[in-house]
Amino acid sequence: MFWVEAVPNFSEGREKKVIEAVVKAICETPGVVFLHWDADPDHNRTVVTLLGPGLAVVEACFRAARVCAEKIDLRRHEGVHPRLGALDVVPFVPLWNCPVEEAVKYSCYLGERIGEELEIPVFLYGESAKDEARKELPAFRRGGLEALSKKMREDPKWKPDFGPFVPHPKAGVCLVGVRDFLIAYNVLLKSQDLKAARGIAKRVRKRKGVKSLAFPLASRGVVQVSMNLVNYRVDSPGEVFQEIQELSLQEGICVENSEIVGLVPLGALVKDAARWLKLESFSEEKVIEGAWLKKMFKRTAPSLLPYLSRLGAKTSVPGGG
Amino acid sequence: MFWVEAVPNFSEGREKKVIEAVVKAICETPGVVFLHWDADPDHNRTVVTLLGPGLAVVEACFRAARVCAEKIDLRRHEGVHPRLGALDVVPFVPLWNCPVEEAVKYSCYLGERIGEELEIPVFLYGESAKDEARKELPAFRRGGLEALSKKMREDPKWKPDFGPFVPHPKAGVCLVGVRDFLIAYNVLLKSQDLKAARGIAKRVRKRKGVKSLAFPLASRGVVQVSMNLVNYRVDSPGEVFQEIQELSLQEGICVENSEIVGLVPLGALVKDAARWLKLESFSEEKVIEGAWLKKMFKRTAPSLLPYLSRLGAKTSVPGGG
Repeated sequence: MFWVEAVPNFSEGREKKVIEAVVKAICETPGVVFLHWDADPDHNRTVVTLLGPGLAVVEACFRAARVCAEKIDLRRHEGVHPRLGALDVVPFVPLWNCPVEEAVKYSCYLGERIGEELEIPVFLYGESAKDEARKELPAFRRGGLEALSKKMREDPKWKPDFGPFVPHPKAGVCLVGVRDFLIAYNVLLKSQDLKAARGIAKRVRKRKGVKSLAFPLASRGVVQVSMNLVNYRVDSPGEVFQEIQELSLQEGICVENSEIVGLVPLGALVKDAARWLKLESFSEEKVIEGAWLKKMFKRTAPSLLPYLSRLGAKTSVPGGG
Repeated sequence: MFWVEAVPNFSEGREKKVIEAVVKAICETPGVVFLHWDADPDHNRTVVTLLGPGLAVVEACFRAARVCAEKIDLRRHEGVHPRLGALDVVPFVPLWNCPVEEAVKYSCYLGERIGEELEIPVFLYGESAKDEARKELPAFRRGGLEALSKKMREDPKWKPDFGPFVPHPKAGVCLVGVRDFLIAYNVLLKSQDLKAARGIAKRVRKRKGVKSLAFPLASRGVVQVSMNLVNYRVDSPGEVFQEIQELSLQEGICVENSEIVGLVPLGALVKDAARWLKLESFSEEKVIEGAWLKKMFKRTAPSLLPYLSRLGAKTSVPGGG
């Protein structure tokens, strides 16, 4: 079985008991490797990172969806981050030699289980989307759950991929899909000039792999260029940092520092190291940990199958996508 | 049990059959993860990188020592690299939370087995050395095996730590010890000016963590600063590259490129990324693969013990060091 990473986002970032129940459901699923979680009280949202063989990750995300549906009531949810569901969005990222189509199958399988067993409408997005208009998250989020409900009722093009045709009263809807690694990367400028920061954000946004906004950070008295790097193979943190540094200097502004929110794939560090050091041939397999994982991975993958059969998980994945 | 990396160097880099037999003995040892091998015909020497729980790595290196003793005759060995034994030197590197003293115990255990079972004299070096004068490899290598044999006969201070007091007729002696990660790192200059390269090598050698020499690369018509970075926490590839670039520019010379020979630890990339990107807080656990390994490692380590007992390996490690 191929391995995937999943990054479920759920709509609770304040109630410790609820967050713990969801994280526990994920951690206790046999076969998955739980990596990281980050709860944001302002966004009232928690992001978990896990990985493992496809079916084990599907099982963990399904368990998370069930706990979210039990414990979160979207009607009472407040937070600045746009959201459409209790378990809001579940991106899958193919790892190593996992083909995108294989990851798409896992996402369909998760969608099917959430739709049928929990009766929550599920939309496939990203690489899993069956329609170009449903590839990007903003297409779903524009106008919030109310606007989406209306489209679901009125427009046959906005029928969910799995589950009922109206949002679940407490849990809303759920978005499931396949995308590449995403690096949440912020650069802080030693300045309060929001207009300059917006100009810089606009310039780096011209890059294919960068989504960027500018924010004032009131508590620190500086401005920030906040980005999602959606394709580090095209636009790596180092390349983006260098461009922002040059653009800032043209405005007479220095870069204070930068931060990676959550996790970054080894491949991004390898790409930047190769650039900075002018390395002739360099790859993840030249890094001890990269080579190690590649070997361990080959050995570990088959041995997880007995765990999965104990779950009663179907071993044939339904086609689709 | 704690995990260690080992980098056995053996004195054969030409005969494919011999190299394969040694590598096979390592690969087939239960519990170890074989990462990399590199045979150099000029040096007539092969370097293997493996890792695993301490006792599994000891077993793999012992098996390598046995095959080397059988198949390599040092009396007929030719090569530019200094060498003292068929299995010439075995450095152990403690991984993750492995204390240095624990790695020293593993190195002693390997030394004891090679000394007693194969009747080859073993010297402990690096962190395993019991005498400050026997810490560094050049102290053993100066004058070759002939000079060392003489010291072994005449000077009680040069008695081996394990095994007989005279070199093995075919296999010579073996050096075993604990050291930190070592990065073999070369910077190529767009110039044929060996004198300038030597000056630059001398300057970077002032750094505590750098051993450097300058070489002409006849085939490519350029000069090279060839280095061992013995403490990347103090002197990382990025810092050294930057200094060499600045020193070269002062001589009117450009850096052509650089190369990492063998493998580099993730920690070195993390350190350089944090410097270049001005990252406020960054660590190996912020890298997906680093976090992954840390989790997998915890899970995998205990499950290897049944394999080890099948080997008949002693489970109590003799003290020492």
